[in-house]
Amino acid sequence: MYHHVKELMYKVRVDTPDPKFGNMLLEQFGGANGELAAAMQYSIQGLNCDDPARKDMLMDIGTEELSHLEIVGALARMHLKPMKTSRKAAEADPLIAIAGGGGVGLSNSMGDAWTADYLKITGELDVDLRSNIAAEARAKIVYERLINFCEDPGTKDALQFLMTREITHMMAFTAALESMGKDRFTIGKIAPTAGLVDQYFNDSTGAGDRGVSDARGPWNEGGNWEYVQAPAFQEFKSEKQGTRTTDSLTTLADAVGEGNSVEQAETTRLGSARATGTKHAKIKKEN
Amino acid sequence: MYHHVKELMYKVRVDTPDPKFGNMLLEQFGGANGELAAAMQYSIQGLNCDDPARKDMLMDIGTEELSHLEIVGALARMHLKPMKTSRKAAEADPLIAIAGGGGVGLSNSMGDAWTADYLKITGELDVDLRSNIAAEARAKIVYERLINFCEDPGTKDALQFLMTREITHMMAFTAALESMGKDRFTIGKIAPTAGLVDQYFNDSTGAGDRGVSDARGPWNEGGNWEYVQAPAFQEFKSEKQGTRTTDSLTTLADAVGEGNSVEQAETTRLGSARATGTKHAKIKKEN
Amino acid sequence: MYHHVKELMYKVRVDTPDPKFGNMLLEQFGGANGELAAAMQYSIQGLNCDDPARKDMLMDIGTEELSHLEIVGALARMHLKPMKTSRKAAEADPLIAIAGGGGVGLSNSMGDAWTADYLKITGELDVDLRSNIAAEARAKIVYERLINFCEDPGTKDALQFLMTREITHMMAFTAALESMGKDRFTIGKIAPTAGLVDQYFNDSTGAGDRGVSDARGPWNEGGNWEYVQAPAFQEFKSEKQGTRTTDSLTTLADAVGEGNSVEQAETTRLGSARATGTKHAKIKKEN
Amino acid sequence: MYHHVKELMYKVRVDTPDPKFGNMLLEQFGGANGELAAAMQYSIQGLNCDDPARKDMLMDIGTEELSHLEIVGALARMHLKPMKTSRKAAEADPLIAIAGGGGVGLSNSMGDAWTADYLKITGELDVDLRSNIAAEARAKIVYERLINFCEDPGTKDALQFLMTREITHMMAFTAALESMGKDRFTIGKIAPTAGLVDQYFNDSTGAGDRGVSDARGPWNEGGNWEYVQAPAFQEFKSEKQGTRTTDSLTTLADAVGEGNSVEQAETTRLGSARATGTKHAKIKKEN
Amino acid sequence: MYHHVKELMYKVRVDTPDPKFGNMLLEQFGGANGELAAAMQYSIQGLNCDDPARKDMLMDIGTEELSHLEIVGALARMHLKPMKTSRKAAEADPLIAIAGGGGVGLSNSMGDAWTADYLKITGELDVDLRSNIAAEARAKIVYERLINFCEDPGTKDALQFLMTREITHMMAFTAALESMGKDRFTIGKIAPTAGLVDQYFNDSTGAGDRGVSDARGPWNEGGNWEYVQAPAFQEFKSEKQGTRTTDSLTTLADAVGEGNSVEQAETTRLGSARATGTKHAKIKKEN
Amino acid sequence: MYHHVKELMYKVRVDTPDPKFGNMLLEQFGGANGELAAAMQYSIQGLNCDDPARKDMLMDIGTEELSHLEIVGALARMHLKPMKTSRKAAEADPLIAIAGGGGVGLSNSMGDAWTADYLKITGELDVDLRSNIAAEARAKIVYERLINFCEDPGTKDALQFLMTREITHMMAFTAALESMGKDRFTIGKIAPTAGLVDQYFNDSTGAGDRGVSDARGPWNEGGNWEYVQAPAFQEFKSEKQGTRTTDSLTTLADAVGEGNSVEQAETTRLGSARATGTKHAKIKKEN
Repeated sequence: MYHHVKELMYKVRVDTPDPKFGNMLLEQFGGANGELAAAMQYSIQGLNCDDPARKDMLMDIGTEELSHLEIVGALARMHLKPMKTSRKAAEADPLIAIAGGGGVGLSNSMGDAWTADYLKITGELDVDLRSNIAAEARAKIVYERLINFCEDPGTKDALQFLMTREITHMMAFTAALESMGKDRFTIGKIAPTAGLVDQYFNDSTGAGDRGVSDARGPWNEGGNWEYVQAPAFQEFKSEKQGTRTTDSLTTLADAVGEGNSVEQAETTRLGSARATGTKHAKIKKEN
Repeated sequence: MYHHVKELMYKVRVDTPDPKFGNMLLEQFGGANGELAAAMQYSIQGLNCDDPARKDMLMDIGTEELSHLEIVGALARMHLKPMKTSRKAAEADPLIAIAGGGGVGLSNSMGDAWTADYLKITGELDVDLRSNIAAEARAKIVYERLINFCEDPGTKDALQFLMTREITHMMAFTAALESMGKDRFTIGKIAPTAGLVDQYFNDSTGAGDRGVSDARGPWNEGGNWEYVQAPAFQEFKSEKQGTRTTDSLTTLADAVGEGNSVEQAETTRLGSARATGTKHAKIKKEN
Repeated sequence: MYHHVKELMYKVRVDTPDPKFGNMLLEQFGGANGELAAAMQYSIQGLNCDDPARKDMLMDIGTEELSHLEIVGALARMHLKPMKTSRKAAEADPLIAIAGGGGVGLSNSMGDAWTADYLKITGELDVDLRSNIAAEARAKIVYERLINFCEDPGTKDALQFLMTREITHMMAFTAALESMGKDRFTIGKIAPTAGLVDQYFNDSTGAGDRGVSDARGPWNEGGNWEYVQAPAFQEFKSEKQGTRTTDSLTTLADAVGEGNSVEQAETTRLGSARATGTKHAKIKKEN
Repeated sequence: MYHHVKELMYKVRVDTPDPKFGNMLLEQFGGANGELAAAMQYSIQGLNCDDPARKDMLMDIGTEELSHLEIVGALARMHLKPMKTSRKAAEADPLIAIAGGGGVGLSNSMGDAWTADYLKITGELDVDLRSNIAAEARAKIVYERLINFCEDPGTKDALQFLMTREITHMMAFTAALESMGKDRFTIGKIAPTAGLVDQYFNDSTGAGDRGVSDARGPWNEGGNWEYVQAPAFQEFKSEKQGTRTTDSLTTLADAVGEGNSVEQAETTRLGSARATGTKHAKIKKEN
Repeated sequence: MYHHVKELMYKVRVDTPDPKFGNMLLEQFGGANGELAAAMQYSIQGLNCDDPARKDMLMDIGTEELSHLEIVGALARMHLKPMKTSRKAAEADPLIAIAGGGGVGLSNSMGDAWTADYLKITGELDVDLRSNIAAEARAKIVYERLINFCEDPGTKDALQFLMTREITHMMAFTAALESMGKDRFTIGKIAPTAGLVDQYFNDSTGAGDRGVSDARGPWNEGGNWEYVQAPAFQEFKSEKQGTRTTDSLTTLADAVGEGNSVEQAETTRLGSARATGTKHAKIKKEN
Repeated sequence: MYHHVKELMYKVRVDTPDPKFGNMLLEQFGGANGELAAAMQYSIQGLNCDDPARKDMLMDIGTEELSHLEIVGALARMHLKPMKTSRKAAEADPLIAIAGGGGVGLSNSMGDAWTADYLKITGELDVDLRSNIAAEARAKIVYERLINFCEDPGTKDALQFLMTREITHMMAFTAALESMGKDRFTIGKIAPTAGLVDQYFNDSTGAGDRGVSDARGPWNEGGNWEYVQAPAFQEFKSEKQGTRTTDSLTTLADAVGEGNSVEQAETTRLGSARATGTKHAKIKKEN
């Protein structure tokens, strides 16, 4: 059951209304990473949740986001107000001006109506918490960008408040996830296929615009990682498991980033052709 | 630049077509957490990425997801084929049967057209990686549910392959995020407001359906957490920062979960009324 | 600022879960006339409202609808629960079963994601109140249909509660509108064009499937109404005002429903051809 | 069956094309309250209608709206024409300029494609008529805003014509509804629950931004109204009916808007804390 | 200006209502290739059209499609009528049954609201005519599928009428396009780049599921076609024009479909590896 | 299976970033006729295709479009980059600037998320090819408009490349369709109704804005065409077939475009009233 108190969670103050900025603010009102999205994602997850402690947390934060929605709406409304009478201001968002009479609506900065397609609700608690951590990170960066494009001190204060709370929630969701005590890569109950799960597929080869060729890092080397070069051109090791041969990987990987003789280029078309300076190894070997 | 090889990344086999299951499979074809969503999310993030190494990774995995899209499409098509001629089968998804001629389309199991609203792309690399970790967790659990509702062994094998790869990607994205060396709660450049960031707002009070009252856990106690009881009914500590008083918190928190005398109930209306057994403290004090 | 109490506004009880009915219930959860639509429409209108008394009312009712959303969600969840494990049940709504794990989501009974396109918010208070009266009437009839298709007594009780509240709100919105003291056909400030405003255009002529020809009633006769027959075939009386001649109207109107001589039919092609029994007056005059 | 006459229902004239205004006009072409929405809402309602007289009216007005769609389209096209060749003009709506070649399309002023989600069609005649009355009120105010932002006399004339017709339709729908002879708060056949239907829930308490506390008016006092204070904190009077106690209402209501002693504040936390000047009553009683 | 005659363009008769078929019929009512889509596409194109003769044709056919919409709606309504009272029937489309009261709405067979995203309107007459020819072909095949799944003779007759008219329109649009006297591959005014326009890129190589390798046909051989093998692995012939070398094409093409020695396989990895039986040529040449 | 090479198919160069143009470019990235739409339409058609040769072609071209998507994305990103830091630039597309951090997203120039509703996939090969020919024509004209609004030479070169390829594909799809050897107006297997198929319905009559009355051309005269005047006002020739009388056609047709005596006007109200100069024939005959 909900109760509303006729006071904002943070007192907003706008010295100089800026309709174009008010329009930008709508990203956090009716936008994909905005406060309604947050409120609904957590509250509906909470409704579905069977873990009473984390359900309580989801309702706490979901409810707080409703209060945030109100703050953003109040801020945006103050910035959009000139649209009521100024044709020039109205051009910043004709949907708000003409259809909405200068008030806020549940749309984003480009007039797209809010949609539940923005939400990530799976009914699997640890999965939902991961979605929430990511959602809070997105909301944080969006507030930061708004602050960077804002010139009104009162608005900046309110945005700083809202931005801070996203980090609070991110910390809470993280603690809630970690306290579940699950292995970080165990999702659900069915185990992934051993072997296959450790194969990294190098599906994008050659050297990129920035002159960098195939990159290696902890996401594809070390630990149990097997590096499979260009699986589109590799044979199956086990058809049933879907694993692929990795024999040629080393060679191809070696080739990336170093000059190759023409003969080496033969063997490394996919990975290094562009890095060799000869650009494209000839497809037909001349001999 | 893309190249296509006319072979599936995993050889699919369907012994008994099951149109209703084929329809369910569309969740992973044109659904919110499906393969097109994954392919587009990572590939577009990659296109926008300024870190060449992780850009390469995003393109590797984004490309792999395109190959997965093809696998799911091939599987679904085999299951949906009876819709071409059987009226009964056609009823499982009339959009596919009547408009699509029994072939797959980019919609989900309820016929909703795929939309880019499903995607989470912020242009902030570490934020995007968090979105991807969550996306892979979602995709994994969806494949698990499909496996649980599937009776065809060949289909189960293919789904096991696809499900496994989601864990692979989850590991890769996690390693890529962690190797960036950023503090886990530092997003962007603007710091959150000290003090406020550690306040946990108890916005949902009383005892829930399952007889559990306000829950405490590492997400709201210990560490630096300050527990603010029902901020809708609290005063500001600092209006400028948006922090709230927490004086009464302990009392309210104490009350939750333990019997209270009537007088204590007076002081704890929000948090514990329902837990006390007296249900609602009387609003007007009798004296 | 919002506060949530962990108790439902109406205690729900479901004796026999019925997944297909649970799916129907989603119309009132994430559907076009459902509780989220109501909560958002009134709350956002309230946020935009400059009349403090009616703003308070909008927030009262908007908040109540949030509590209703929770009730419907709890009910639907109980009915949908079998989808978690039963393949047969899952077929009633694969989106819920596969992507949502058997929990509720913000979609309607056909899986369409909730969208703010459902909302009617104009920022003109009396107009918004009219939209709300209509919205409550729609919600009422939808609950009635759900009750009619429901066999579970506990569910019926809860729906009766929710349905009743829609009438309460309809009464409140009506009183709020009428107490504004505005003329019922005065919207905004610019007056309609005299004369033109009283012209009823008979744009659909002939006799319908049910054997009824052009109908007259208080919506086009009596009072100030001028009845303009088939304006597509009439001349302008005033081009500037857009009014049209009505001279021939009587004749045409007379003709509808009575036999006409061939000569009369000549003059009444539009209105009465089908009513005359000769069906179509010949286009070419026989003489 | 439809027939089209190659003449506009109102002759449009544009002296000075204004692409940004042309873009605003699209609200009434492909927007939520625009002419296609009106045409479709009434025509489809008409198709479904079993009352032959009001069905005829729905078809009359639905058809007229199609003619209005044509007028708005012709007007908008004249204003948008500069987009065909001017890059500057094209920036007012790149979708129209680049994808549409400077012609009109079925989207609104922010480029959102028209969607049937805008429509309100329930198949319950009196409910549909209420939706139509509200729809006409919305369309009227939107035309008024367009007129206010328009500087071209010819365009203003056409908009005045269209605006006037909305009032005509509003009068017709109202007469059609009232002539059905139904009680104004009787929708469908199932009666609301007596007692509960007269309870007004004060779900939003405290004093708002404008210094106004809980408002009373004909929508919650007088007649049969029972005023239930903050139901989230009240007990059930009848659990089966969902009615709530109202005993404390008077006290709380009294408290709102008048100064209270600290002791009174104790008893009125929800309703009046902010109105008392002490802002928040301390949660822990000092004694 | 539009006029409506209260008679259907084709008299519909339904002997045995079939709610599931009624639901399928909605594809042609509110679906992507349905009658509203056709009516709107042609009418809006007509509104934008500067060629008076073809504009007239667009309005003729656009108006006819409105009459078809009415026929499909009447048919569907007859089939859906059992949803008004039968719970079993209601399950075929709960949106129609619960929200629509058993009447038709502008959605497709899976409940998706009609959207103008279905439309193809470019404001370039010959382009629009091509879109219309394709649209009619799609509508024709959809009607054929409906006929194939329909058991009611009266319904089949009506569908045969509607299906026939699509071919009529297809012929008309084709004649209108051809009589414009434009070269069939000349669109707009800017000429394509010579040379590049004749290069066919073989971007998908290997042998497919059905044992067929790279296919040649009039779409990539003969005439001016140059066949570029796997451009992702080819060098530019002219970077400025974007043309690519085609030297190796013949060799690769030859390789497709015939056994190759290991050495040949070396040269044909892309095109023929899978066709050779050795599956994947080893990336590293053994010598 | 897909493979990605880290090089663009066409090397892009942008000398002067133009954020507003970058925004326009999004039409071809995430817009209705853009590269993702093309890639998905052809690739999914290919997945469903049973004709191995044309399936190969669909995969070739579908894959090429993915490479085009990458080019457009790279171009747009360069133009949009100023949005990262400039508030002024950000106003060109706040969704990109605020939510996307200045990177590209799968939306169009007005911020609408890409949707599969743009796609035309029927599973009937020749129908799909027609849809593709039209799609390529649309894409071509969109590129031409972008070139016309572009001032950056490097960007123009890239657009010329992309535009050229659309013509290439149009030629390929046309050849593929024609080589199927089907009659051009034979779609599917059920023949249209003879007689009816040749009736052209003149549903739009009178003289249009440009002073042109009913137009005749190869789309409604010559060959087998029967010209049915205003079927809304004609009788059935065969009710079962839906054919209509055409007796009066000639007369009406004659009337169009020539002065008529008053008596003739009597007979030709629909077709020629406006052409006669008397504007509207009087409905009531004077005698």
